[in-house]
Amino acid sequence: MVVEIVTIGTELLLGHLVDTNSAHVASVLADAGVDVYLKHSVGDNATRLESLLREALERADGVVTTGGLGPTVDDLTKDAVAASVGTTLEMHEPSLVAIAERFKSFGRTAPIAENNRRQAILPKGSIVLENPHGTAPGFVALRADGKFVACLPGVPREMKPMLAERLVPWLAQRGGLQDAIFTRTLHTVGIGESDVDNRIEALFRTLDNPKIAVLAHEFKVDVKIMAKARDGAAASALIAPVETELRARIGDGIFGIDAETLEGATLRRLAERGQTLGTAESITGGAIADALVRVPGASQSFRGAIVAYDNAVKTSLLDVDEGLLREHGAVSEEVALAMARGACARLGVDLAVASTGIAGPTGATDTKPVGLVYIAVVSRTGKASVRKLTLPGNRDDIRRRATVAALSLLWNYLDKEGSGAPPRT
Amino acid sequence: MVVEIVTIGTELLLGHLVDTNSAHVASVLADAGVDVYLKHSVGDNATRLESLLREALERADGVVTTGGLGPTVDDLTKDAVAASVGTTLEMHEPSLVAIAERFKSFGRTAPIAENNRRQAILPKGSIVLENPHGTAPGFVALRADGKFVACLPGVPREMKPMLAERLVPWLAQRGGLQDAIFTRTLHTVGIGESDVDNRIEALFRTLDNPKIAVLAHEFKVDVKIMAKARDGAAASALIAPVETELRARIGDGIFGIDAETLEGATLRRLAERGQTLGTAESITGGAIADALVRVPGASQSFRGAIVAYDNAVKTSLLDVDEGLLREHGAVSEEVALAMARGACARLGVDLAVASTGIAGPTGATDTKPVGLVYIAVVSRTGKASVRKLTLPGNRDDIRRRATVAALSLLWNYLDKEGSGAPPRT
Repeated sequence: MVVEIVTIGTELLLGHLVDTNSAHVASVLADAGVDVYLKHSVGDNATRLESLLREALERADGVVTTGGLGPTVDDLTKDAVAASVGTTLEMHEPSLVAIAERFKSFGRTAPIAENNRRQAILPKGSIVLENPHGTAPGFVALRADGKFVACLPGVPREMKPMLAERLVPWLAQRGGLQDAIFTRTLHTVGIGESDVDNRIEALFRTLDNPKIAVLAHEFKVDVKIMAKARDGAAASALIAPVETELRARIGDGIFGIDAETLEGATLRRLAERGQTLGTAESITGGAIADALVRVPGASQSFRGAIVAYDNAVKTSLLDVDEGLLREHGAVSEEVALAMARGACARLGVDLAVASTGIAGPTGATDTKPVGLVYIAVVSRTGKASVRKLTLPGNRDDIRRRATVAALSLLWNYLDKEGSGAPPRT
Repeated sequence: MVVEIVTIGTELLLGHLVDTNSAHVASVLADAGVDVYLKHSVGDNATRLESLLREALERADGVVTTGGLGPTVDDLTKDAVAASVGTTLEMHEPSLVAIAERFKSFGRTAPIAENNRRQAILPKGSIVLENPHGTAPGFVALRADGKFVACLPGVPREMKPMLAERLVPWLAQRGGLQDAIFTRTLHTVGIGESDVDNRIEALFRTLDNPKIAVLAHEFKVDVKIMAKARDGAAASALIAPVETELRARIGDGIFGIDAETLEGATLRRLAERGQTLGTAESITGGAIADALVRVPGASQSFRGAIVAYDNAVKTSLLDVDEGLLREHGAVSEEVALAMARGACARLGVDLAVASTGIAGPTGATDTKPVGLVYIAVVSRTGKASVRKLTLPGNRDDIRRRATVAALSLLWNYLDKEGSGAPPRT
């Protein structure tokens, strides 16, 4: 099946917005075995959209669009889509009910506003794609010969689940797809990219299906296994022996697969050991805690954080000695360790991780440049680990990298500690 | 002048790469007064590229492409471009000399490799766009009727200067450019989208240049003023009276313009008043503090945060009464207020914002559903404000919305407090 992608929005043509949607749609369609040969962006203009869609339907089996479904522009988008497949619009009653129910769930009792009613008007004979994350439903408009225009919302958090959970299954049951690409990703931390490369190079050269690829992120390296196969079972049979071989070669550094995150793996390991965790944050300003709390069930191990941005708070709430601050400065190994120890005591946790550093643009000195960061991990039993980093980039980059570095150090600390008896006393 | 943009590269169609080039080109062309009605991405495929270019030249005065000029694929790109304007390729001697000189400047003395020689082969009669940042020159291929295909490299650091310093001046001297588009965005908070719509609707209908557009985000609504004008001064003259009128109609809810963020505006206002701020976070888990610390110079007002994810930490570090937790539960108006008061005292700040809620997927009860969130703002002088929200979405959505809601409530609290004498005592 060949599909073209059309992203809709005048913002895209003015360059006010980078089109990330079409890359996401392209990637999901490729994984589903759909071929994409062309992508387009068009403004909120019915005439141009209609003729673009008509031309695309001559070349391809269908079109997937994103955007153009907001309350102010959806009329023109839906008019153009309906015209391109040779039909007109009508009210889709079940969608109207769904919209009413969504508003009721927010506690709104007023009648549905006209512009929200209009969201339920769709091309005749459309297949509706429900939108559990927003009011505007997506839909697939069908041309008499079976070619189609599938319209998804532009808001990524509404578009992505609708694509994965509604549109791809509909495309799959229509048939005509190529072998799909199935992937499994092994996530590692604490091993450099070139080290990973060296360990797997010999294997890499012998493989055709599945293929493997190495993708480096900050402090993390992924190894992706990609198999072309008819279905999931056939893909698993191809992937499993390669995964076993990779695990043998890479070893300890693997913290999880596929959707698993470093913070998720860390919390799972802590929960297995019955240990509790807290953070003491200066440069990261709560971002380490935020990453941990993002994981469902975080409360099983994560207790809390003290964000001591001001030195007075480092003293009053983390018991960092004023003399230590005077002697070594807030950005120092000594203060990072003292912060972590203070968090262990004040939060009553088994393990604490602390961050202190200079994010810039101001605050640097001759001996302490922007990007200097210390991360410490301390356990209640007194074991400690500290790491000095010099991180590149602007304020946002440095703070983001410091957060990932803290989670990495924490994971490596837990990994080295082994999985013996829980140290909780 | 109307131009279409074509980005070339198979990785764009596989979604392995987000197309940031076309947004940059679109934005620069808009600023130069060129109208862009369509953008396209195509793979490294000569047939599809040629037919895409032919169709684009029927609709527009010209096409600007990026990519497809690397050593492995440039033959097919240049073949397709030449064919689309009805010509063939030939060696462009001055470009060959330029390539040789560039290699010499790197200290290479060997003869130019065949694939680098090929970079100097261009469509007959092309205008060459020199590339001071790489070997492959760009070029403008001309059709007999004066329509053109301008080809830029795909590497952003080569493409951007070539676009700004070579192509835009060439377009300008050709003439036929429109006025450029200049924008100013007013950011509001605490007013619903439909309320903003109502306040500006009458104005909206009377305007042609500048135009205005309303863009809703969570808890925030932007009003964008877009003026077509010859230059910045002419644009300001068009925008200023509309901005004044919009400010009169929308009033207090406007917190900033253009690149200003809600957290930036909040910190600026606090700094003006000499007030300090802290947070007490449960459901947001440090995300409010993180958003504030992201602002350069946050330390002028922001002191720290206590993330009390566990109830024991709410008691021990925020002095929330255990009886209050038992009677009302952690997710309650009473506990939100007590957390904010505790943060004021423990962090020694003038103002504190607190969050408590149920992010899911577990933790809901009959009376407290997933998405129930309380936000409290309390000042050291005892003034307090609390808001109950029922937020839709999954765990990530709810936590993100709670963070924006907390910043919004804080801003509205500061806004209502007026700009009188600083309450610090």
